[in-house]
Amino acid sequence: MLASHYHINTLKEAPSEAEVASHQLMTRAGMIRRIAGGIYTYMPLGLKVLRKIENIVREEMDKAGALELLMPVVQPAELWQETGRWDEYGAELLRIKDRHQRDFVLQPTSEEVVTDIVRNEIHSWRQLPVNFYHIQTKFRDERRPRFGLMRGREFTMKDAYSFDRDEISAQKSYDIMYDAYTRIFERLGLRFRAVAADTGAIGGSRSHEFQVIADTGEDEIVYNPDTDYAANIELAEAPCLIAERQAPTAQLEKIATPDATKCELVAEQLKRPLCDTVKAVVLATDPIDDKGKPQIWLLLVRGDHEVNEVKVSKLPGFENGYRLASEEEIQDHFGCVPGYLGPVGLSDTVTVIADRTVAHMSDFICGANEAGFHYTGVNWGRDVAEPQVADLRNVVAGDPDPTGTGTLAIQRGIEVGHVFFLGDTYSKKLQATYLDKEGKPQLIQMGCYGIGISRIAAAAIEQNHDDKGMIWPRAIAPFEVVICALNWAKSEAVQTASMQLYEQLKAQGIDVILDDRDVRPGVMFADWELIGVPVRVTVGDRGLKENMLEIQQRARGENEKIQTSEALSYITQALAQQ
Amino acid sequence: MLASHYHINTLKEAPSEAEVASHQLMTRAGMIRRIAGGIYTYMPLGLKVLRKIENIVREEMDKAGALELLMPVVQPAELWQETGRWDEYGAELLRIKDRHQRDFVLQPTSEEVVTDIVRNEIHSWRQLPVNFYHIQTKFRDERRPRFGLMRGREFTMKDAYSFDRDEISAQKSYDIMYDAYTRIFERLGLRFRAVAADTGAIGGSRSHEFQVIADTGEDEIVYNPDTDYAANIELAEAPCLIAERQAPTAQLEKIATPDATKCELVAEQLKRPLCDTVKAVVLATDPIDDKGKPQIWLLLVRGDHEVNEVKVSKLPGFENGYRLASEEEIQDHFGCVPGYLGPVGLSDTVTVIADRTVAHMSDFICGANEAGFHYTGVNWGRDVAEPQVADLRNVVAGDPDPTGTGTLAIQRGIEVGHVFFLGDTYSKKLQATYLDKEGKPQLIQMGCYGIGISRIAAAAIEQNHDDKGMIWPRAIAPFEVVICALNWAKSEAVQTASMQLYEQLKAQGIDVILDDRDVRPGVMFADWELIGVPVRVTVGDRGLKENMLEIQQRARGENEKIQTSEALSYITQALAQQ
Repeated sequence: MLASHYHINTLKEAPSEAEVASHQLMTRAGMIRRIAGGIYTYMPLGLKVLRKIENIVREEMDKAGALELLMPVVQPAELWQETGRWDEYGAELLRIKDRHQRDFVLQPTSEEVVTDIVRNEIHSWRQLPVNFYHIQTKFRDERRPRFGLMRGREFTMKDAYSFDRDEISAQKSYDIMYDAYTRIFERLGLRFRAVAADTGAIGGSRSHEFQVIADTGEDEIVYNPDTDYAANIELAEAPCLIAERQAPTAQLEKIATPDATKCELVAEQLKRPLCDTVKAVVLATDPIDDKGKPQIWLLLVRGDHEVNEVKVSKLPGFENGYRLASEEEIQDHFGCVPGYLGPVGLSDTVTVIADRTVAHMSDFICGANEAGFHYTGVNWGRDVAEPQVADLRNVVAGDPDPTGTGTLAIQRGIEVGHVFFLGDTYSKKLQATYLDKEGKPQLIQMGCYGIGISRIAAAAIEQNHDDKGMIWPRAIAPFEVVICALNWAKSEAVQTASMQLYEQLKAQGIDVILDDRDVRPGVMFADWELIGVPVRVTVGDRGLKENMLEIQQRARGENEKIQTSEALSYITQALAQQ
Repeated sequence: MLASHYHINTLKEAPSEAEVASHQLMTRAGMIRRIAGGIYTYMPLGLKVLRKIENIVREEMDKAGALELLMPVVQPAELWQETGRWDEYGAELLRIKDRHQRDFVLQPTSEEVVTDIVRNEIHSWRQLPVNFYHIQTKFRDERRPRFGLMRGREFTMKDAYSFDRDEISAQKSYDIMYDAYTRIFERLGLRFRAVAADTGAIGGSRSHEFQVIADTGEDEIVYNPDTDYAANIELAEAPCLIAERQAPTAQLEKIATPDATKCELVAEQLKRPLCDTVKAVVLATDPIDDKGKPQIWLLLVRGDHEVNEVKVSKLPGFENGYRLASEEEIQDHFGCVPGYLGPVGLSDTVTVIADRTVAHMSDFICGANEAGFHYTGVNWGRDVAEPQVADLRNVVAGDPDPTGTGTLAIQRGIEVGHVFFLGDTYSKKLQATYLDKEGKPQLIQMGCYGIGISRIAAAAIEQNHDDKGMIWPRAIAPFEVVICALNWAKSEAVQTASMQLYEQLKAQGIDVILDDRDVRPGVMFADWELIGVPVRVTVGDRGLKENMLEIQQRARGENEKIQTSEALSYITQALAQQ
């Protein structure tokens, strides 16, 4: 490809709404163009990256025995009504009507359609297992689309669905996908972690996220640097930090703590470490039938810890959702404004749940349920009844690994893949069964497996960029090599040397572009640093006089002078090492 | 690929709604599955065909210098409002609202979005010409989707858009696409014709359709077997069949023709050839502003000819559409019921237009504007004023070529590609300009070029099938070769011989499937005849005893016994000839 025949149109400035590096850089490099909120055109440079990602995903899915099909973007409401998701799915599900006023959705995922296909196609145990996948345009009507491809509305996803005779076989299908995903992210050239994760709205009993490590990631990953343990912080078990509860040594004392509505302020006023304080969070769960009263809960975590919302949602009694209690409810049940709440002297209308660590604290500090006052020297059993105990908090860096080996660390990640063990969640609702060897109908066991193709492009940039632009891993770079032919129009020597190298690289199957544009070298170099092509070769008259070319590896930065005759082997070696 | 690891699920019966061969056979072969009216899942076998078509299209587009990008499926209404198509486009344009009640469309085509991109990206003459294309999911909300992939609602299309500095350069871009399309359809292995065509709703001044020849096609193609002339019947010029008008020889005579409301009946009653009669069609054009009266037109074609609606729509006075005149209007202007109408003695409220051939007729027969009567011996100039003359009729087979060489023939075709010269139709509405060498803004000249990827699959079947199933051209066959391994499970000899051939074929880059399923040979053969794989090799114990395999070419039918050692070269030769 000659650059003069390609479309290269870089911008000096990123649009003001671009908040993250990937959005800024992809826009500046001319890889994407916004058409509407969260809806982009992939320009030729951007599409090349997307296709390379797609191809790696496709190859590994095929190798893993999955069969590619293509399900439609527009799907009939009836199937979504059969599973109940027509009502349950939030406003992200774009519901539309055709000319005959029939209801459809723009697919954000395809569990319904694929299960419908399978219940029609699969009748016998002989036809199982099978794994169908497609790479297709998805639509999720985000309330506030942002971050470019990271949280767009229209995006490309690979979603696979496995169908098995029984749970053991389904687990095997899950493991095959887990391994395929590992190979995919290795081949993409990204630093990533597979982390145990919550199953969320998709349902099912087991799941892993594939997270690309990046400081700008929205997710927090808890991992043990000494083992292979890794989990999303939503799920990661937080250990009790106090092996045994100590016997009380202090008296219960009510102390004035004016304006100290947060643990940090209380600790400061009382000149005590933050880890001696206990934080109170008041939640309410509403009755299902509007008849009963809301149940009020007091959740306690240590002053330096945070409540984990996903863990709370799994507590007994919280199955149907929860909310923060209103100020009025807090006044009713605690006789006090928020900021000074605690478990001492509460009526039995409030259920107290303490985090594991809090349950082992002694002589601790908590709110006195009286504005402007806290208790010190609080002890379980003596001053307040023993609470229910649960894992309520987020892990923090330095926590011991609950398995006993080493300590936990935290890093941020971008979720680009997710594998779910679904069991019979969907097959039951859609009655997808097969006849077993005895001729008896059995529910098919399912798994589902997503990879955000367009999101990977953004995540790769979040992980790999500098102040000059993107730094693509070779496998998904828009081009592997760029030859910058300086003074192309006027120098026959430059034309000859650069075309020769260009043809040599092409003959090796290397994806190369020759920049023959009539622009200043500074502009040309800045363009390719922004676009982030792994290897740049500069061909200029001055160097050619000494039979030299200049080669720069984008990830390293420095220029190296190489003999023209050695350029080819130097470049292929440089690429091979990436 | 082993068939036992693939998904093969053929059906004995086609669904009742499947009216055409491609719909019946693709469904029976398990290539497509209906999800909703006009919306299908491409099953693995069907998707393979689609991808092979896509790849050929992509390769030839790239070779022609077009740049692939990817525009979104969901497009904002604003752009469609800017061109006016938001209002003009019929109910086939699916208009939807997002969660914020903003208007969008599901794209049936992308002139608006691509022109918007170009007006933002292209500023200088240096950036032109450029041709952007994408292969993307389209949606057209057909009132009555049918014929499977032939007239679906969701489908895959390649659409390209060229942008040029001036008309001459834009014509060149058009020609480049025309040539690329010719190569594409040659590579697909289909019999096709490029035919001059009407520009229709897309607009513009020049267009060609690429038609796959098939008896079941919806279009009629006029062509000259001796030249390269070919045109859609909508557009094909119909010559005057009478070189010179003869002098009158008969008297005008009014003759009773009871119940003869059609030319055929009149000719029969009067024992005269049909080509002596003249057919009357009464049309009305309405005033734009509701103030004036409808204009009434009498169109005359020879009794054995048909009026061509597209030609009529281009007559002066018909720019804003036309309709059949109502019975009341006919009564008002002709004083007679339909069936006996003619030009003789009409008031000047009716404008008469005669087809070229009619204008040269003499002593002809037409309605007398009196129920139950016709005139014979009618002559222009003597009995009735000279009419306006225009090409009003469809060509019929045997018409002389208007250029003077040979005669025209007619065959049916399926439109699978269409190239349009658009000029500045869209660039004017969207103000897509560039600065010329003098720094003056100029409108960009455009062309647009569509190929129906999924429709090609259906058209290929309409062209190539028999009572056993599909007969795929090699280039787009789901597999090129199938090895039917009879008694696989029990015969080690069969396993060894078929695996060896399988590996040899794979090593040659041939797309081969080995059928190792435990089914009866008859079932296996019927499946592959239905699926239409070009070459079938049967490996069985009986043949192996004599070192023989059986090879059948799907298009030919008969089986041939081939020495095992010669199978590979026989197969590669057979494929090369396709």
